[in-house]
Amino acid sequence: MSNETEIVSAWLTSDEFELARQRLPIVYLNLVPVRLGHDGVPTHIGLLLRATPDGEITRMIVTGRVNYGERLSAAIARHIEKDLGPLALPRVPNVHVPFGVFEFFPDPSVTGLRDSRQHAVALGYVVPVTGECQPSQNSLDLMWMPVTDATPEWLNSELSDGYATVVRMAMAAHGLL
Amino acid sequence: MSNETEIVSAWLTSDEFELARQRLPIVYLNLVPVRLGHDGVPTHIGLLLRATPDGEITRMIVTGRVNYGERLSAAIARHIEKDLGPLALPRVPNVHVPFGVFEFFPDPSVTGLRDSRQHAVALGYVVPVTGECQPSQNSLDLMWMPVTDATPEWLNSELSDGYATVVRMAMAAHGLL
Amino acid sequence: MSNETEIVSAWLTSDEFELARQRLPIVYLNLVPVRLGHDGVPTHIGLLLRATPDGEITRMIVTGRVNYGERLSAAIARHIEKDLGPLALPRVPNVHVPFGVFEFFPDPSVTGLRDSRQHAVALGYVVPVTGECQPSQNSLDLMWMPVTDATPEWLNSELSDGYATVVRMAMAAHGLL
Amino acid sequence: MSNETEIVSAWLTSDEFELARQRLPIVYLNLVPVRLGHDGVPTHIGLLLRATPDGEITRMIVTGRVNYGERLSAAIARHIEKDLGPLALPRVPNVHVPFGVFEFFPDPSVTGLRDSRQHAVALGYVVPVTGECQPSQNSLDLMWMPVTDATPEWLNSELSDGYATVVRMAMAAHGLL
Repeated sequence: MSNETEIVSAWLTSDEFELARQRLPIVYLNLVPVRLGHDGVPTHIGLLLRATPDGEITRMIVTGRVNYGERLSAAIARHIEKDLGPLALPRVPNVHVPFGVFEFFPDPSVTGLRDSRQHAVALGYVVPVTGECQPSQNSLDLMWMPVTDATPEWLNSELSDGYATVVRMAMAAHGLL
Repeated sequence: MSNETEIVSAWLTSDEFELARQRLPIVYLNLVPVRLGHDGVPTHIGLLLRATPDGEITRMIVTGRVNYGERLSAAIARHIEKDLGPLALPRVPNVHVPFGVFEFFPDPSVTGLRDSRQHAVALGYVVPVTGECQPSQNSLDLMWMPVTDATPEWLNSELSDGYATVVRMAMAAHGLL
Repeated sequence: MSNETEIVSAWLTSDEFELARQRLPIVYLNLVPVRLGHDGVPTHIGLLLRATPDGEITRMIVTGRVNYGERLSAAIARHIEKDLGPLALPRVPNVHVPFGVFEFFPDPSVTGLRDSRQHAVALGYVVPVTGECQPSQNSLDLMWMPVTDATPEWLNSELSDGYATVVRMAMAAHGLL
Repeated sequence: MSNETEIVSAWLTSDEFELARQRLPIVYLNLVPVRLGHDGVPTHIGLLLRATPDGEITRMIVTGRVNYGERLSAAIARHIEKDLGPLALPRVPNVHVPFGVFEFFPDPSVTGLRDSRQHAVALGYVVPVTGECQPSQNSLDLMWMPVTDATPEWLNSELSDGYATVVRMAMAAHGLL
C-alpha cells in the first residue's frame, strides 16, 4: 500500500522496516466497523472488498499498524479514516480493553490467523461509525452486512486468513452469536 | 539486562534492536504475580525490588518483550520463570483478554506510564503462581504484599514510572479496590 | 421512592416485594454517567446529591432494579431518564459485558458494599450521556466531577456504602486510575 | 429438581418462590466447566446429559440460582459440586468479570435464550475443573467434548434453549472460535 509506505518512510526506510518486521512482533489493530441500532446493539458489520497481492478477492475488516509515538486512539481514528473516509465519524472505543488479542503468524498452523508479511499482535476493537462511509482507493467496495446474516459459514467463505474468527469474536463480545 | 540481550542477539544484533525500538512500538507484557485464596481471589501481590540503571531502588512487577514468532502464553511463562524462578508454577492466564492495555512512552507526560527506552504497548495479565518463587539475580528481593495493604499511597510511593497504576488496575479487574 | 413504588405495584404489592427482597437476591444496575472527550475517553463523572432516609447527604451514581420481563438495555435507559431527565441522551452501553459485578449486602462487612434494604447483585455499566441532564426531584443536585479530580480520597469522603469503589472500578475499566 | 426445592424451602415456601419468580428477575449462574491444557487454554468442555420435564434429552452446562445472602463464589462452588460431585476441584473464577451476561425469558423470541420457569439474568463463567467429576443423580451422563469438535452445528443440535450460544461465547472469551 503506497499509503502505508509513505507513513513508514517518515520513520524507517522500507528496507529497515522490512528487516524489523522479520525480527520483531508488530503492534497491530483489528477494527470491526459497525452500525448501531437505537438500543446500542450492532446491527451491521462493515466489510471492505479487497484484492490481495496474489489477485484473490476477499472481504476484510480495517487493519493496520500503530506508529512509533502514536496513541492507540489516534491510530484507530487514522485507520478508520484511511479505509472508510473522512466522514465516517467513528466513535473511538475504550482502548484500554480490546474485545480480544489476536496473534497472527506467517505460518497459519500456529493460531489459524495468518499474516504472510509479519508476526502481528493485533488488538481487536469494535468501532461504531455514525457518518457516511466510502471505501478508499485500496478497496473495491464496502458492504454493510446485517449481523443476523453473518453466519459462521458465510464469514468463513468470504473472509480469509482467519478474519472470520475475528469478526465472530467481535460479535460474541456484544452478545451476538 | 544481559539475559535479554542474549535472547535478542539470536534475532537481531543489539544495534539493530536499538534502532528498531526507536522506530516501532514494541509488544510488551505487564505481568502481576499473585497468590490466590481458596475462593480464587488474589490475597497477595508479588513485587520485585530492583535497582534501576540510575541507581534508584524501586519495586516492580514482571515485565518483558514478546519475541518474534513467540506465542503470548510462552512469553508469559518465560518471563515469570526468568524473574520468579523455575519453580514458580504459574497458571498461564487467558491471553485473549488482558485486564488492560498500557501505553508506555519515553515522555511520561503522554500517559503517565514511562519507559525511557522505547514506546511499548503492554498487555496486562494477572498471573497466579502456586509454587515456590525466588527472585532472579536481576532483583534484590521479592515481597508478597497483602492486597489489603496495597493502598494507592503505598503503591505510588514504592513503584515508579506509573506501575502503581498498572497494579491498581490489576486489582480493579478482580474487584479489589 | 414513590416512583419505584408505583412501578413495583404493577407487579407485586409493596408487601410482596418487601417479602421477596428479604428472600432473594435482586438484579440491580450500577450506572456511572460520564461525559466523553473527543478521543472517546471519559472526562467527567456525573454524581447526584441525595438525602438518605436517615437524613445524611451523600453523592450517588444512578442505580435501580431491573423489572420482571424487562431487557437490561431498557432498564438502563429507564433509570438514566428517571434520574437525569428525558434529554440526557444516553448511549446505551454493551450490556453483555458489564465493567464489573458488585455484590451488595445489608451487612457491610461482607464485601464493603452495603444496601440496607436487600441483597443486590449489581451489574456495573459506564453510560456516556450526550444531552442535557437535569436531576430528578429525588436529587438535590447533579455535579460533573472532572475525572482527574476524582481521587480515591475525594470519592471516599463524598460517596457512602462502598459506591466510591464502584466509581473507581468504572474509571479503571477505562484506563483511568 | 427436588434438590433445589429443598434449598428454596429454607428461605421461601415453594409457593412464595413460585410467586416471586413470576414477578422478579432471578439472579442466575451459567457455568461452563472446562479442562485446561498445560498452556492454560481450555481443551474440553464438560456437558451434562439431562432429561427435561417434557422428556426431551438434551446436553446442558451447569446452571443454578444464587441464594439470598450467598456470595457468587460460594454459589459457583455449590452448583459445581451439586452437578459434578465433591471431587471436581473447581478453580473458582474471577467473579468480578463474567465472560457475558445472559438474559433468559419464558418467551424465546426476546433474546433466543429461553427459561420457561422465569426471567433469569445469568452471569456466565468458565470454570476449570482439575479433579474427578461424576454427574449427579439429576444427570444421565457427563461428557468432555473436545473444544475443536464443538462446532456451532454440533452445539446447536445438542443443546436447547439457546445454551449453544452461551457455550460459544465462553469459547470466544478464550479466543476459541
